[in-house]
Amino acid sequence: MQIEPMGSRVLLKIIEEEDRTSAGIYLPETAKEKPQEGEVVAIGPDVDEDEVPLEVGDRVMYAKYSGTEIKVDGEQYLIIDAGDILARIRKD
Amino acid sequence: MQIEPMGSRVLLKIIEEEDRTSAGIYLPETAKEKPQEGEVVAIGPDVDEDEVPLEVGDRVMYAKYSGTEIKVDGEQYLIIDAGDILARIRKD
Amino acid sequence: MQIEPMGSRVLLKIIEEEDRTSAGIYLPETAKEKPQEGEVVAIGPDVDEDEVPLEVGDRVMYAKYSGTEIKVDGEQYLIIDAGDILARIRKD
Amino acid sequence: MQIEPMGSRVLLKIIEEEDRTSAGIYLPETAKEKPQEGEVVAIGPDVDEDEVPLEVGDRVMYAKYSGTEIKVDGEQYLIIDAGDILARIRKD
Amino acid sequence: MQIEPMGSRVLLKIIEEEDRTSAGIYLPETAKEKPQEGEVVAIGPDVDEDEVPLEVGDRVMYAKYSGTEIKVDGEQYLIIDAGDILARIRKD
Amino acid sequence: MQIEPMGSRVLLKIIEEEDRTSAGIYLPETAKEKPQEGEVVAIGPDVDEDEVPLEVGDRVMYAKYSGTEIKVDGEQYLIIDAGDILARIRKD
Amino acid sequence: MQIEPMGSRVLLKIIEEEDRTSAGIYLPETAKEKPQEGEVVAIGPDVDEDEVPLEVGDRVMYAKYSGTEIKVDGEQYLIIDAGDILARIRKD
Repeated sequence: MQIEPMGSRVLLKIIEEEDRTSAGIYLPETAKEKPQEGEVVAIGPDVDEDEVPLEVGDRVMYAKYSGTEIKVDGEQYLIIDAGDILARIRKD
Repeated sequence: MQIEPMGSRVLLKIIEEEDRTSAGIYLPETAKEKPQEGEVVAIGPDVDEDEVPLEVGDRVMYAKYSGTEIKVDGEQYLIIDAGDILARIRKD
Repeated sequence: MQIEPMGSRVLLKIIEEEDRTSAGIYLPETAKEKPQEGEVVAIGPDVDEDEVPLEVGDRVMYAKYSGTEIKVDGEQYLIIDAGDILARIRKD
Repeated sequence: MQIEPMGSRVLLKIIEEEDRTSAGIYLPETAKEKPQEGEVVAIGPDVDEDEVPLEVGDRVMYAKYSGTEIKVDGEQYLIIDAGDILARIRKD
Repeated sequence: MQIEPMGSRVLLKIIEEEDRTSAGIYLPETAKEKPQEGEVVAIGPDVDEDEVPLEVGDRVMYAKYSGTEIKVDGEQYLIIDAGDILARIRKD
Repeated sequence: MQIEPMGSRVLLKIIEEEDRTSAGIYLPETAKEKPQEGEVVAIGPDVDEDEVPLEVGDRVMYAKYSGTEIKVDGEQYLIIDAGDILARIRKD
Repeated sequence: MQIEPMGSRVLLKIIEEEDRTSAGIYLPETAKEKPQEGEVVAIGPDVDEDEVPLEVGDRVMYAKYSGTEIKVDGEQYLIIDAGDILARIRKD
C-alpha cells in the first residue's frame, strides 16, 4: 500500500529514539518543543524544492507535535507540512 | 440526486472503519487527531490540480473533525476543503 | 421589493426542513454544524463565477450559522458570503 | 457641514425602525445580528465600485454593531466600511 | 520643534471638545467607540493619497483609542495611522 | 564593537528622560503607551527608505515596549522594527 | 554529522554567557525578552540574503525563546528562522 501526501506535505517514517543517528545526537534542553527524527518516504506535489530541497531517503528533524501520525502495516509514519521540517541530518 | 461541491471543496464518501483499506492500516497513536478514510465523489471547480491531484474514485485520508458531514440516501458524505486532505492511499 | 447583495454575497431563500429536496436527504451526524438548504435568489457583483458557479434558482447547502437571516414579506432569506456555500444540489 | 468618509468607508444616514422600507420588511429571526437600514450619503475615495456598486441615495442593509455612529445636527449617521454593507434595497 | 510622522502615519493636533466644529455636531450614541476631532499637522511619506486624500489643515474625525497621544509645548497631538481616520469634516 | 541590525530593524541609542529634546516636549496623557526617544545608530538592510526615510543621527519617537533593549559598553540601545518608529523629531 | 537547516532557517551554535563577545556587552534591562548570542553554522536555502545578509562564522544576537534548541555531540545548537535574528555583532 502506498501513501501519497497531498499539497505541500511530506510523508516521514518515524525513527524511534533507540535507532537515531548517533550516540551524541540531540537532546533538547527544554521539554516544550522536542525535535524528532524521521526518514522521508514521499514528497507532496506542491513542496517547493528550492525552499525544502529534500529527497526520498533523507533523514530529517521536526518539532514534536507537528503533523499527523498514522500507522501502516505496524510502522509509524507522519504526514507533515514541509515547512515544519527543521533540518536535514547528514552523516559525515 | 447530485451534490456538487463549490469552491475548493471535495465531496467524499466516508468509509466506515470496518471497510478500510487493509487489516494493517493506520491506527492513530494519539487520539487528538484521528485520520479518517474517504472516497472522492466530486471535486469543486476551484481545486488546484497541481497541489491536490485527485480524481473521482481515489481513496484519501483526512483529519477527523475536518469538513461538514452530510447524509444522502442513507450514506455518509463529507464536504471538505481540498487543502485538508492529507494523502491519497493506493493499494499496491 | 428587491434585495441586491453587495460584494461577494449571495441572497438565498431559506428552504424549510419539510420542503427539502428529498426524503432521503442529509441528516447531519453531529449537531455542531448542521447544513441547511436554500435557493439562490440573487448573486452579488463580486462573486467569482469560476470558484462558485451558481445561477439564480440553484438549490444549495450551507453551514448553519453562516450569513445573516432577514425576513421580507413573511419569507425567510439569508445573505451569505459565496465562499460559505458548501455545494449545489441537483436532482437527477 | 459636510462629512467626507476616508478610505473604503461609506457615510450612511441611519433609518429609524418606524421609517423603514415597508410593512412587510425584514424582522431578524435571531437577535444576535440584527440587520439595520440606512441611506447612502457619501462614498469614500477607495470604495471599489465593482464590488460595492452604490450611489448616493441608495437604501442599504448593514449588520448591527458595524461601523461608528455619529450625530450631526440632531441626525444619526454611521461611518461604515463598504465591505460591511450587506445589500441594497430597491422598491419595486 | 517639528514632528515628522513615519510610514503611513498622520500627525493630528487634538481638538478639545469645547472647540469642536459646531454646536450641532456629533454626539456618539454608544460610549464604546467615541469619535474625536483633530487637525492634520503632518502627513507621513507612505500615506496613500488616493485612499486618504488629506491635506495639512484638514479637520478629521477618528475613533477614540486610535493612535498614540503626545504633548509638545503644552499642546496635545496624536500620531495615528491614516487608515484609522474615519472622515474629513468640512464646514459648508 | 558594532551592532548591525538585520532585516527591517533599526538600532537606536535610547535617550534618557533628562536628556530629551526640550523642556516643553511630550508628556503622554495615558500611561498605557508612553512614547520614548532614541537616536538612530544603524539601519537594517531591508528598511524601506520611502516608508521610513531615516538617517543615522536622526532623533525618533517610538512606543514603549517596542523592540528589544540591549546594553553595550554601559549604554542602553534598542533594536526595533522600522515600522514601530512613530516619528522623527527635528529641532527648528 | 551535518545539520542542514531547511527553508528560511539558520543553524546557530549557542554561545554560553561566559564566552560572550566582551565584558561590556549587553545586559538586558527587562527580563521578559533576553537577547542571546550565537555563531552562524549553516544557512537554509530560502534565507533572503538582501534582508538577512549573514555568512557562516558571523556572530549574531537573537531573542530568547526563539527557535528550537538541539544538542549534537555535546554542543548546544539552535535552529532559528532568519527573521528572528536581531543583529550581527562585529568586533571593531
